[in-house]
Amino acid sequence: MYGLMQDRPLSLPHVFHRAEQLFGHKTIVTAGPDGESRMTMSEWAERVRRLSSVLDTLGISPDGRVGTFCWNTGRHLELYLAAPCTGRVLHTLNLRLFPEQLVYIADHAEDEVVFVDRSLLPLLWPLADKLTTVRHYIVIDDGAEVEIPEDPRVLDYERLLADAQPHQGRFEIADENTAAAMCYTSGTTGNPKGVVYSHRSTVLHSLITLTADGLALSERDVVLPVVPMFHANAWGLPYGCLLAGSDIVFPGPNMTPQAILGLLARHRVTVTGGVPTIWMGALPLLGDHDLSALRSILCGGSAVPRSLSEAYREALGIPMTHAWGMTETSPLATISTPRSQHAALDEDARADIRARQGQPVPLVDLRLVDPATSEEQPWDDRATGEIQAAGPWIAREYYRGEGGGAQFTEDGWLRTGDVATVDRYGFVRLVDRTKDLVKSGGEWISSVELENHIMSHPKVAEAAVIGVPHEKWLERPLACVVVKPGETLTAEEIIEFLTPRVAKWWLPDAVEFIDEVPKTSVGKFSKKTLRDTFAGYQLAGSQHVMES
Amino acid sequence: MYGLMQDRPLSLPHVFHRAEQLFGHKTIVTAGPDGESRMTMSEWAERVRRLSSVLDTLGISPDGRVGTFCWNTGRHLELYLAAPCTGRVLHTLNLRLFPEQLVYIADHAEDEVVFVDRSLLPLLWPLADKLTTVRHYIVIDDGAEVEIPEDPRVLDYERLLADAQPHQGRFEIADENTAAAMCYTSGTTGNPKGVVYSHRSTVLHSLITLTADGLALSERDVVLPVVPMFHANAWGLPYGCLLAGSDIVFPGPNMTPQAILGLLARHRVTVTGGVPTIWMGALPLLGDHDLSALRSILCGGSAVPRSLSEAYREALGIPMTHAWGMTETSPLATISTPRSQHAALDEDARADIRARQGQPVPLVDLRLVDPATSEEQPWDDRATGEIQAAGPWIAREYYRGEGGGAQFTEDGWLRTGDVATVDRYGFVRLVDRTKDLVKSGGEWISSVELENHIMSHPKVAEAAVIGVPHEKWLERPLACVVVKPGETLTAEEIIEFLTPRVAKWWLPDAVEFIDEVPKTSVGKFSKKTLRDTFAGYQLAGSQHVMES
Repeated sequence: MYGLMQDRPLSLPHVFHRAEQLFGHKTIVTAGPDGESRMTMSEWAERVRRLSSVLDTLGISPDGRVGTFCWNTGRHLELYLAAPCTGRVLHTLNLRLFPEQLVYIADHAEDEVVFVDRSLLPLLWPLADKLTTVRHYIVIDDGAEVEIPEDPRVLDYERLLADAQPHQGRFEIADENTAAAMCYTSGTTGNPKGVVYSHRSTVLHSLITLTADGLALSERDVVLPVVPMFHANAWGLPYGCLLAGSDIVFPGPNMTPQAILGLLARHRVTVTGGVPTIWMGALPLLGDHDLSALRSILCGGSAVPRSLSEAYREALGIPMTHAWGMTETSPLATISTPRSQHAALDEDARADIRARQGQPVPLVDLRLVDPATSEEQPWDDRATGEIQAAGPWIAREYYRGEGGGAQFTEDGWLRTGDVATVDRYGFVRLVDRTKDLVKSGGEWISSVELENHIMSHPKVAEAAVIGVPHEKWLERPLACVVVKPGETLTAEEIIEFLTPRVAKWWLPDAVEFIDEVPKTSVGKFSKKTLRDTFAGYQLAGSQHVMES
Repeated sequence: MYGLMQDRPLSLPHVFHRAEQLFGHKTIVTAGPDGESRMTMSEWAERVRRLSSVLDTLGISPDGRVGTFCWNTGRHLELYLAAPCTGRVLHTLNLRLFPEQLVYIADHAEDEVVFVDRSLLPLLWPLADKLTTVRHYIVIDDGAEVEIPEDPRVLDYERLLADAQPHQGRFEIADENTAAAMCYTSGTTGNPKGVVYSHRSTVLHSLITLTADGLALSERDVVLPVVPMFHANAWGLPYGCLLAGSDIVFPGPNMTPQAILGLLARHRVTVTGGVPTIWMGALPLLGDHDLSALRSILCGGSAVPRSLSEAYREALGIPMTHAWGMTETSPLATISTPRSQHAALDEDARADIRARQGQPVPLVDLRLVDPATSEEQPWDDRATGEIQAAGPWIAREYYRGEGGGAQFTEDGWLRTGDVATVDRYGFVRLVDRTKDLVKSGGEWISSVELENHIMSHPKVAEAAVIGVPHEKWLERPLACVVVKPGETLTAEEIIEFLTPRVAKWWLPDAVEFIDEVPKTSVGKFSKKTLRDTFAGYQLAGSQHVMES
């Protein structure tokens, strides 16, 4: 027996028309080199309608990929809607990728057009001749003093909009499983892989940003998304704001802590979100700004240091809200908002809870699986395992089947590659990446935990731990340590420092001193590079493990 | 091009397993004649698993209808999940219906079993021989001193549960469009009509109860649903609580204001919801109870009098939150929570806003259509029209096609039968029911507005206005007035009272004094009965309209 409910697709046209119809008086502010520009949601909606006609006029295929190479701006938000509402697929290109990765991605997605902020032309234009499928480069003039190439492929965004007729009537997407947007993962191994979001997945994911125990976005909020719109959906904030009717403030190209704090104060922003690095940089400047309107600082992308969250709580009265996910999960999978069972805890214990990645949001299912045995592990906060995820906004495969099935289980769950414990309330605590675990005999050693201990040594600037081959134990940990300028340190001192802090058999078998930990394009430790560097590493012995 | 997201159905099994897995420590309290009973969500979940096996053992068809004839209780919530999670269809029977309607409905739905609270046996059991499809009556002993019939069809709920094996593993519903529940509308004309909810519609509707600008249900809430669970989904509260992880307090059979207020105070309830009548009865008793934990009082079912909402705001510091919908809309369609554009208004103007039915919730589309011309009307707060609704939890037809297509437009929207104006922000203000409008010439007169004015006369107890046939003007208004005991009043006095308050051509052509306005089974004015009573009514003239 079937339900007799209307067969209405979950689609971005609904999100667009809702914003246009109910929230036309709300505002979208974008900061730029010439100052701030402001438009109402009505003006924005009219521009989206014009832009959708531009895509037709340019001859973009009905399901063609529309590349964007843009900062967080109101005009980027026009593209966020115009592309999917006309059946095209928004493809946000990551500004921070290496040129060869960009070329690979635009080519793999078969982008037909790329919309590019004028200030970013110097990064993109040198690659133009290699982007074989791209027929048009539409320059969005953000006031940067950058030369615009004289080339028939290059057109001006504002001129195109001015010349276009606004799309009439409602946008329609009949099948909610139609692709809406795509984003490539900047994996540290192999080629980038494309994740393709649908209208359904995007609308459901956006709804979660409105839930009281999620981000609780409301019409009364003023939201500043620091997290780039070229990252997975900017954590759902742009679409969430449209659905809720929040005012939006976009930072544009100037992402310095000083500029962000100025915007937060000036516009009395209530909700913001970005990676820990941003907030780390802003910390020393907090005292110069009135941030009293702020009610939530969403933080993710990498683990939020407990000390950082606590520093914000002490300075502003609100801690950071930790969320976890990845490009493959749209990205919201867990969020660490307070629960009633934590109310009676003291501040210190609550800080421990906040340092966790949080509880799965509605519609997301998680399970903890031992990567060696594939057996499901209990949620007792002790057993570790890989987090596997299922839900309507979680990828089932990569675009064009790249990466094979290795990242997806036979029963259709995503292997996140993150190793965690989970407490009885479903609060996740990440301990490592599966590929960074050191497999010592039948046991696993968390490289992240070792690194955190080593980095708490006052003379250490940074440190990374990798597994190196071992005859008997398969792998043993090697610590790669960067000493602070002007300091000296020995391998023995490191081991001595670690001894009271970790199990004896976790102690690294060797310590190497290096100048810098290599980084990926998005600033994470590149353990792949380190593993290549130390590929043929010979361990002298394994004194620690034998005694354990 | 299609998205590459996991094909995960929106289904009540997810809601059940989420509650079981994350919120097992939360509590469900039910009040009863023997005092309050309390169980944890874990205990409740284990009982749902047993109950699902009971349905198998009883031989209920894989998609069979499972009737419930129950108060708001934790055990009713067990049925709310066990039936749909096993593919059956929960059919909540309205306790307040007339016997012949009950027989019609249970027969029309082909209920195979009815679960009935012991206290309600006297209403149901006399009909048992007429309910031809019902094979089992499962008595839920709520402590009422009511005789249980000796009959092979009658079984005891607790004994069945005790004897059952809990369902093992996860429940699965592969197709989200599978029917989950049904509810019949208590229309005032014709036979009741069945609305069939799907798993998809129910999950989406429940999500809306979690949104910040909706009910904002969170894990930290304690929720008391006063609105009966035999009304459309109890406004989404039960499923919403499970999804959010809120504690729940059920009132059981004692629905007196005194009992409700006692529960609200004792359990520090934060969110409650019920029809205006309940809150009207509770108003004089507010001072006797500590309701300081309360943050939201949801009110709907019929228009919330502005004075009632204001009285609560003055007494408790929180006004009532007006919501609007109907069985056909699951029911949440609009909600009147504060918006930023109202922040600068004074308290009096804000009260006017709160007296409106509110803004459409996400995923619901509304339009305003002139019932005579079928033309869409502007949202200018002046033009009136019928509200038509579209969305994934709005009915597209009635069970077994009853009622024909009259209530649904050719393009698949629901004709709500409610006449309203809508302001530029999408805030709905209901003015009448389409069928109660008086069609005078080419113009419409709101019977509700006339009634409200007449009822504000100090000597009037209640009043209803209906249209009666008129040779020239098609229809003209007839006022049916009940005078307060001990008072006297003439037709001329009524007209005189109305004259400065409404347009001249709205003035009733006649006034009849009656003893009581007839009511429907749910306590609403039955204008159908009045129209039957005055079917052959002869108007003396139409002095007002001719001069207009």
